[in-house]
Amino acid sequence: MNYGIAIFPSKPIQDQANAYRKRYDPHYALIPPHITLKRSFEANDDKLDELITELKTIANETDPFTIHINKVSTFTPVTNTIYFKVEPVQALIDLQAKMHVGKFEDNNEHPFVPHITIAQDLVHDEYSDVFGRLKMESFQFEDAIDRFQLLYQLDNGSWTVYETFVFGKEQV
Amino acid sequence: MNYGIAIFPSKPIQDQANAYRKRYDPHYALIPPHITLKRSFEANDDKLDELITELKTIANETDPFTIHINKVSTFTPVTNTIYFKVEPVQALIDLQAKMHVGKFEDNNEHPFVPHITIAQDLVHDEYSDVFGRLKMESFQFEDAIDRFQLLYQLDNGSWTVYETFVFGKEQV
Repeated sequence: MNYGIAIFPSKPIQDQANAYRKRYDPHYALIPPHITLKRSFEANDDKLDELITELKTIANETDPFTIHINKVSTFTPVTNTIYFKVEPVQALIDLQAKMHVGKFEDNNEHPFVPHITIAQDLVHDEYSDVFGRLKMESFQFEDAIDRFQLLYQLDNGSWTVYETFVFGKEQV
Repeated sequence: MNYGIAIFPSKPIQDQANAYRKRYDPHYALIPPHITLKRSFEANDDKLDELITELKTIANETDPFTIHINKVSTFTPVTNTIYFKVEPVQALIDLQAKMHVGKFEDNNEHPFVPHITIAQDLVHDEYSDVFGRLKMESFQFEDAIDRFQLLYQLDNGSWTVYETFVFGKEQV
């Protein structure tokens, strides 16, 4: 089965992201707005049990932290994805790093750039239009992060939450 | 904020349900296939904290149990919803009941009929056609249930998981 690990920001940020995703992101219906911590990886049941124990330990080692979003940015020219840029605080960087060492496969394709996707797979003209407009706008979000989610992917491409890991609250 | 409580069945059942939901359920993109334990209710942050403590206790009091699905059924004439009927084992009935007493508002609109919706809001002719076809088919699913999920609703009507409660594993 394919698993992934993500943070869901609070409702106001998800609502704002969805206002754009509805029009500009074909993944809109597959998963709520999120910060990807670990992209899709395969695991069987035994491996999963092992990783869940690790994730509980990681959650218990992590203190709640605050994230800030101040602008939209883009991965162009690699992809024309447009996203809310999440300022890379150390706690978030450390959290993501721990899911790519030890018992975890390092399946990073790129250096970690924390973000919440709001548009992707647009044709070039639409991308230019949307990004040109959004980069002029002011976005100011602050959010308290105290948990992450382990998800698995269904045949239709959508993601279902398997388990939540709350910082400092997991029973190992 | 609006919250709800649900069980996500395992991937094979979700995939089968989605094969129908994609065509016959306008809620397809709003939430993965699920068994509703408690329908939408409002709670502020203080109330939510109180309920989460209760939900952990309930999860710890519950042993994993097995559900069986043997057929599709319908709520007609109340609504023309078509669903996988989940045989009502006592553990599931007890679990649902505990979320409607004590600190929980009893917001049941109907007696508890455990089910996984696969079609709803169809026009009458399509309902008759779909149900006529599905009631002739054989469905045999068995699933081990060891957790439930607390979700909240976004402005677009979709649901995001807030927290998972695993039977016997919660730290109160």
